[in-house]
Amino acid sequence: MSQPVLVVGSLGLDTLKTPFGEAADVLGGTTSYFSLAASMYTRVRVVAVVGSDFPPEYRTVLESRDVDLRGLQVMEGRTFRWSGQYRFDMNVAETLDTQLNVFADFHPALPEDYRQSEFVFLANIHPALQLEVLEQVQKPKLVVMDSMNFWIEGARDQLTDVMRRADIVLLNDGEVRQYAGTPNLISGSRQILDLGPRAVVVKKGEHGALLLSQEDGVFVAPAYPQEDVRDPTGAGDSFAGGFIGYLASRDDTAPDSIRRAIIHGSAIASFTVEDFSVRRLERLTTDEVLERYTAFRNLTRFVDEVP
Amino acid sequence: MSQPVLVVGSLGLDTLKTPFGEAADVLGGTTSYFSLAASMYTRVRVVAVVGSDFPPEYRTVLESRDVDLRGLQVMEGRTFRWSGQYRFDMNVAETLDTQLNVFADFHPALPEDYRQSEFVFLANIHPALQLEVLEQVQKPKLVVMDSMNFWIEGARDQLTDVMRRADIVLLNDGEVRQYAGTPNLISGSRQILDLGPRAVVVKKGEHGALLLSQEDGVFVAPAYPQEDVRDPTGAGDSFAGGFIGYLASRDDTAPDSIRRAIIHGSAIASFTVEDFSVRRLERLTTDEVLERYTAFRNLTRFVDEVP
Repeated sequence: MSQPVLVVGSLGLDTLKTPFGEAADVLGGTTSYFSLAASMYTRVRVVAVVGSDFPPEYRTVLESRDVDLRGLQVMEGRTFRWSGQYRFDMNVAETLDTQLNVFADFHPALPEDYRQSEFVFLANIHPALQLEVLEQVQKPKLVVMDSMNFWIEGARDQLTDVMRRADIVLLNDGEVRQYAGTPNLISGSRQILDLGPRAVVVKKGEHGALLLSQEDGVFVAPAYPQEDVRDPTGAGDSFAGGFIGYLASRDDTAPDSIRRAIIHGSAIASFTVEDFSVRRLERLTTDEVLERYTAFRNLTRFVDEVP
Repeated sequence: MSQPVLVVGSLGLDTLKTPFGEAADVLGGTTSYFSLAASMYTRVRVVAVVGSDFPPEYRTVLESRDVDLRGLQVMEGRTFRWSGQYRFDMNVAETLDTQLNVFADFHPALPEDYRQSEFVFLANIHPALQLEVLEQVQKPKLVVMDSMNFWIEGARDQLTDVMRRADIVLLNDGEVRQYAGTPNLISGSRQILDLGPRAVVVKKGEHGALLLSQEDGVFVAPAYPQEDVRDPTGAGDSFAGGFIGYLASRDDTAPDSIRRAIIHGSAIASFTVEDFSVRRLERLTTDEVLERYTAFRNLTRFVDEVP
């Protein structure tokens, strides 16, 4: 029953600085966080590009978790690199440097058997590339897409095309407000919902996540009350990995499953931020995930009695 | 069983401007919002001050909802006035003018029978005045206190005294971060909890509310998904009114009641913002409150099955 998940996005090397430490040239990019998160639930197929300098040990990190790298292109040149820091407010990443390197010429090419993938995550890349992926997958059951301020600003029409063709639009709160031109998150999400996707999921960091769904109305998920945040990088991509990984593992996209998937995504993301890069995900166990999932129930419980 | 609630705070006239309209010299101040909200649940006793210019029809608004104004001092002079506006982002009030007027010389004096009040709300006033109230109440069962950035900055030691003596500290997210000197809301709330109160409740506006409790750990309440926000003024004070009003109506402060009280506070606050000043509260019915309370259940529901 369990289905594999296809992810297309960036894979690269991060250099990070937070009030709790530093790390240089560590495994980063949306696909690494997404893949390790989703691999807690099901098999993952990666489409991405790295340069000839990509460390073989990082391939091993992914492959040892049942992540299929046949769709990973290796091009002559340097791997995509991002450098960022978090100061006092760990909610806001400050980009110090972005080097696209081989990522600048990337065009996704899906291996033949990837094309039958039914659960697809279009991570944050140029919407034109997201559309190229949609041309290659044959009959997906669930397409989830992410994006960023840069494409909202610079490629709005193509981004809107992707939103129309996606089943679930996944953005953070700032991106929803920016895209919709309103500070009201509910109104902004509804504008996106009106484009046609089944649902909009808004990632709100420390404030949790919000679902607006055609079939299921509004669902609000808390964030895990996390005091031990050492590196927030990858929280959103880990959320996406837990979210889609859970749905693919059940081969189910019914409304109740989507609610539970949001809790799984939130649980996984709450682990990611406990250590630098993907380190916490590397040593994460299924028991830990289930324990945290269970803890979420008590976070929002209130007795159903009406006075 | 139902207990009255005592509130001490400001009562005044507001002049407001939002993208959805304007209103001049309308009923405002923390006690007006608080009292009308709490009056949905129980009797309210007000200690506050107004000037001789306070319109008699505003007294009637309160008195017609079982709000006891025997503790309302009327002093020669002008009533407290606040003028503010909300621009594009309705989350942030911009103060245009504050005139303390008779409020500058206010000292709370509790009528004899008010002193036995068991449910007490120390609204946002100078912490020295909050302490004066605590000297006058005899044996309260639940003291809830609010404050603001101005006192955190200018009267921190007295404010800390009040926090130590309160049962529940109620602040907004910015105030918690400011008081605790950390951007992490959970760590910040825990710092306040370590001073001794039973619980800290953090009002997060559109992101709902957060409870950290000695007995009950963490509870996260969503905000009602409200698109129809016309005037956010008084949302926090209405929250406090619904919160304490509910507890007083049951004469109960057990952890499960506190969780439900937070949902009641959130429900009442979601109505307040639908119209200017206290207008929505004036016409609010118990059936509407119960209907919205019920709607909150579906907002955070996810099936308790673990895969």
